[in-house]
Amino acid sequence: MGLFSKDIKTMNDLFQHQLQDIYYAEQQLVKALPKMADKATDQQLKQDFLLHLDETKGHVKPLEQVFQSCGMKMKAVDCPAIDGIIEEANEPASVVADKSVLDAALINAAQAAEHYEIVRYGSLIAWARQLGRSDVAGLLQKTLDEEKVTDRKLTTLAEGRVNMRAAS
Amino acid sequence: MGLFSKDIKTMNDLFQHQLQDIYYAEQQLVKALPKMADKATDQQLKQDFLLHLDETKGHVKPLEQVFQSCGMKMKAVDCPAIDGIIEEANEPASVVADKSVLDAALINAAQAAEHYEIVRYGSLIAWARQLGRSDVAGLLQKTLDEEKVTDRKLTTLAEGRVNMRAAS
Repeated sequence: MGLFSKDIKTMNDLFQHQLQDIYYAEQQLVKALPKMADKATDQQLKQDFLLHLDETKGHVKPLEQVFQSCGMKMKAVDCPAIDGIIEEANEPASVVADKSVLDAALINAAQAAEHYEIVRYGSLIAWARQLGRSDVAGLLQKTLDEEKVTDRKLTTLAEGRVNMRAAS
Repeated sequence: MGLFSKDIKTMNDLFQHQLQDIYYAEQQLVKALPKMADKATDQQLKQDFLLHLDETKGHVKPLEQVFQSCGMKMKAVDCPAIDGIIEEANEPASVVADKSVLDAALINAAQAAEHYEIVRYGSLIAWARQLGRSDVAGLLQKTLDEEKVTDRKLTTLAEGRVNMRAAS
């Protein structure tokens, strides 16, 4: 079975499919983030992962509101991209011997997930606006803003401390 | 077998692994982009994909220079994230019926690949600087800049024309 329903004929169909894809991605990240927080040794990084876990749980609700408001079926579809990103995120924890190096690897992994979401939410927002649903675009924009803040925080932490410790 | 070598003990090891990961990703994108260009119907999009194919072929060489300059084994390691992103990029072409909608889906897919690379090159550059290899950081920065330009061009094309056509 394909990843996409064979019924994608309009931008509305494409929007619905992408919504189902990110709904899956957020659910997978809710499962992945506690493991990443558990493995982080830098206390700030651990705290950032736990805060972002709360935010990620909070991202599921606006998606459900969008499904309802658009009269779309609330379901998650497989998303091999986020599965691959999470697979790469899980791996270093079991094989990177040095804890500081592991922190650097975890940040890199988390940023791959953030950027995946940034692209998908960016497209969803642009498509919602094009479809005349600025209310929906507004709901999704709040999530996008949080993803971008998390990404910047991780960069600051990596360049301010974690990379230096990992290289020492 | 894990994705990571069990020998990752230092930031240098992590850098090498990530270099091998992006080396694989660039090679996979060289295979994927001609198919995406072939399926795009917007002429500008087709041209952008073909231009980025040339750039992507050109990104392999600096990676090989970095391998050599760092005395690292030039090899590609599996990267499930880019495999998943490309899998999602290939799918819409076979199932999205409307050509304008397909163009919008292809842009979204290409931007996921761009952002994956933006994260990975960003980390590699930060790590190279931390390791005292600003020469290596400089080589990779040129590629990162091109990825960012491509991403912005795709956003402009989507929001300037492709999304409007797809929604009409």
